[in-house]
Amino acid sequence: MHGNKGQRVQAVGTLTGATGRAISFLANPSYRRHLATTRAGAVILEERFVADCPVPALIAANPYAVYARVARFLHPPRAAEPGVHPSASVSKDAVVPESAQVCAQAVVAGGAMLGESVVIGEGSVVGPDVTVGDGTRLAPRVVLMDGVRIGKRCLLHSGVVVGSDGFGFAREDPEWIKVPQLGGVVIGDDVEIGANTTVDRGAVEDTVIEDGVKMDNQVQIAHNVRIGAHTVMSAFSGVAGSTRVGARCLFGGAVVVVGHLTICDDAVFTFRTAVLRSITEPGTYSGTLGAEKAGLWRRNAARFRTLDETMRQLRARTKPGRRTGGD
Amino acid sequence: MHGNKGQRVQAVGTLTGATGRAISFLANPSYRRHLATTRAGAVILEERFVADCPVPALIAANPYAVYARVARFLHPPRAAEPGVHPSASVSKDAVVPESAQVCAQAVVAGGAMLGESVVIGEGSVVGPDVTVGDGTRLAPRVVLMDGVRIGKRCLLHSGVVVGSDGFGFAREDPEWIKVPQLGGVVIGDDVEIGANTTVDRGAVEDTVIEDGVKMDNQVQIAHNVRIGAHTVMSAFSGVAGSTRVGARCLFGGAVVVVGHLTICDDAVFTFRTAVLRSITEPGTYSGTLGAEKAGLWRRNAARFRTLDETMRQLRARTKPGRRTGGD
Amino acid sequence: MHGNKGQRVQAVGTLTGATGRAISFLANPSYRRHLATTRAGAVILEERFVADCPVPALIAANPYAVYARVARFLHPPRAAEPGVHPSASVSKDAVVPESAQVCAQAVVAGGAMLGESVVIGEGSVVGPDVTVGDGTRLAPRVVLMDGVRIGKRCLLHSGVVVGSDGFGFAREDPEWIKVPQLGGVVIGDDVEIGANTTVDRGAVEDTVIEDGVKMDNQVQIAHNVRIGAHTVMSAFSGVAGSTRVGARCLFGGAVVVVGHLTICDDAVFTFRTAVLRSITEPGTYSGTLGAEKAGLWRRNAARFRTLDETMRQLRARTKPGRRTGGD
Repeated sequence: MHGNKGQRVQAVGTLTGATGRAISFLANPSYRRHLATTRAGAVILEERFVADCPVPALIAANPYAVYARVARFLHPPRAAEPGVHPSASVSKDAVVPESAQVCAQAVVAGGAMLGESVVIGEGSVVGPDVTVGDGTRLAPRVVLMDGVRIGKRCLLHSGVVVGSDGFGFAREDPEWIKVPQLGGVVIGDDVEIGANTTVDRGAVEDTVIEDGVKMDNQVQIAHNVRIGAHTVMSAFSGVAGSTRVGARCLFGGAVVVVGHLTICDDAVFTFRTAVLRSITEPGTYSGTLGAEKAGLWRRNAARFRTLDETMRQLRARTKPGRRTGGD
Repeated sequence: MHGNKGQRVQAVGTLTGATGRAISFLANPSYRRHLATTRAGAVILEERFVADCPVPALIAANPYAVYARVARFLHPPRAAEPGVHPSASVSKDAVVPESAQVCAQAVVAGGAMLGESVVIGEGSVVGPDVTVGDGTRLAPRVVLMDGVRIGKRCLLHSGVVVGSDGFGFAREDPEWIKVPQLGGVVIGDDVEIGANTTVDRGAVEDTVIEDGVKMDNQVQIAHNVRIGAHTVMSAFSGVAGSTRVGARCLFGGAVVVVGHLTICDDAVFTFRTAVLRSITEPGTYSGTLGAEKAGLWRRNAARFRTLDETMRQLRARTKPGRRTGGD
Repeated sequence: MHGNKGQRVQAVGTLTGATGRAISFLANPSYRRHLATTRAGAVILEERFVADCPVPALIAANPYAVYARVARFLHPPRAAEPGVHPSASVSKDAVVPESAQVCAQAVVAGGAMLGESVVIGEGSVVGPDVTVGDGTRLAPRVVLMDGVRIGKRCLLHSGVVVGSDGFGFAREDPEWIKVPQLGGVVIGDDVEIGANTTVDRGAVEDTVIEDGVKMDNQVQIAHNVRIGAHTVMSAFSGVAGSTRVGARCLFGGAVVVVGHLTICDDAVFTFRTAVLRSITEPGTYSGTLGAEKAGLWRRNAARFRTLDETMRQLRARTKPGRRTGGD
């Protein structure tokens, strides 16, 4: 602690917005400019910034992580209110401990087993033989299909669908015969899944999301995929069938991976990258072109369309040792 | 009006489909070819096309806007049927005016305040302390999480989730600590949000959607984003965390913007553009390459992979004044 | 049959996972390496692989299709349990045959007509005047808006929304006037629609999904679109307004098509392709660049930004017959 050791705080805020009893933090150096003028009650920051801090400072090697803990302490999530809402529909063959909360209009089917302090949000559907680990929370309107297994302390946001059929069809021209999707979905502990994200069940074996994986909104996980522990996938990202993603990978937004690949641990994919081949070496990978003025883009895109042909010509014309002059 | 001033119409139709008492319109000139043969009861069009119109014509500077009003007049949306359906679950601590309609299986939590003539669709969930402005309609199965504030005359389509947690985690290898998402979501008046679109709550301050914004299906708005008034975002578009989008911008489909950027007013992004840097100048921006025959694409893509290296070589070989001949 | 003609099987499995009484299959040659060591009770495969098969083999020209049938026979989908759950809300003006199943918390509105053996999943909403053909199943939490018509033997997964308003607005600066979406949605027989996929209703006429179309999760179909029979669209694919897609097309994942185009029959689009113009010739089309190491990508992307300008210079400098030497 630097400055007034007795400083008390009761809320959190941004460097520009916090006042009086609110504590703020400086993690992203690009916000450093706001430090000099902050009116926060205190700021969590790295030692190197303390000299610029006009208010009491809490020094931390990882200010953002410390902020996360302080914020959770000051603003704890609403506790479960044990009990089954009278409008919920719970099968007599389901296991619902007294500490669990089943909210209005929710459905818990036969064979489902809920752990201690589980919360099933309004209108959520827990299918037959689903298991939900202790302390896991389903937001309103989540669907867990037959036999899905979810670990402990997970958080699934509204509109999430886990255990829908994988996309499997056998062609018999012109028709497609549905391939029954007989596998399940196994989700580890401490997994968070964003709003309207979908995770398909396996075709024969299980789709697996390992411990500590964090998925943002509108992510799509196809059948037979495995996502390694602590991998983070931002919104609009997706992984096609039977691909295995390693541990501790980072997917920027809208990163998509084709099927039947293997992605090693610690691979980082920047925003809007398409992964078309297996990745065997940790590191950062990119694959998108950014917006340009429409006219410039059009001209460059037209050149791209003839790139191979043009390169052939240019290479031929400039072959070293070749006389290009007329004489 | 041109032609029979007494013409009566009672429905709308396309130039090719309308007959008898149906009125049509010509807005997109590419459909002009259908004008000569239309059997519509009347056509709304610009003066310049009236000579080609074989039926009574309603002349307008903005035919599409006039058509929109005529269509709404002839086919008004179903009015709210005031009252709470017996299967709905409404907290005694919620404010639900007599003019509001709460449909079957819907949930309205404590502290929620619904305005006059609000419609809460079947199975929709209005969370604690949510406010919904007069005349706003929620289609079936919409979720508004705790404390979300929605303005007047908005329309939210099925599967919309507003106020889910933003995607915020602090890294403490190998784990990720959840950063509580303590902000809210504020949505202005006359906003339309498409099916299965998600709008996250802010981390500390609010995510803001200003008046008159129109969002299509499966759009994603991350935490702390601000979308300026009357901006239009087509399907699959998304904006990453803390980015501010100006007013009257147009997003073609699948336009995605990275986080922490500023997009000026009146920026137009064409289909499937990725925005990787702030935009400071109004105008049209593009960023995608279109489909080509697979073989041609493969060859050009291979050249792209070596573009920098090849360009270096070619520039060196063709440096003006350099002798490239062998003699 | 090759090998023990009397072999009995009672389940299915993968080449590596199947044992004892489980039958497996070899369809994708890249899994051929697993054949020699399989412990499956039998394997369905092509004649050319039978020599390598250590266990009884069922020889088939199309092993995957035969596997699909065997799997369905051994693991039939759960049959409908006729009846209306007491927590469901069914209008007295709806037609619900005795063979149909309406699950917990579901809603069936007035004028809706369900066919024989239809299943309406938990929390699903069938809107006014909707028709659902014999044998069609809705997973939990599907929404069918007013007047939607669905054929026979369809399967709609959780979170699907059919019949939401198309995205239509007329500009009247700075505002946008909503164009009423008065068309419907017509879906043929044997259509499967993946989780959280959205299909908008037409503006004036109908959005049409023909027989046998298969759509994966999080697909988006805009208003007035027509998808031809037996076309397959993988996850994240989308078609913008008024575009007509032919029959038997294949969309890899994340394939998006702009509006007002015509795509011929039998067009194949590889993963993450953007279709910006009409396609008149059957064949395979591509349009994405794959991930590269970030540094390499950055250099190539920078070259792309100046591609047109550079090409002009290079072409000028290398014009055949031009003297480039200094002498």
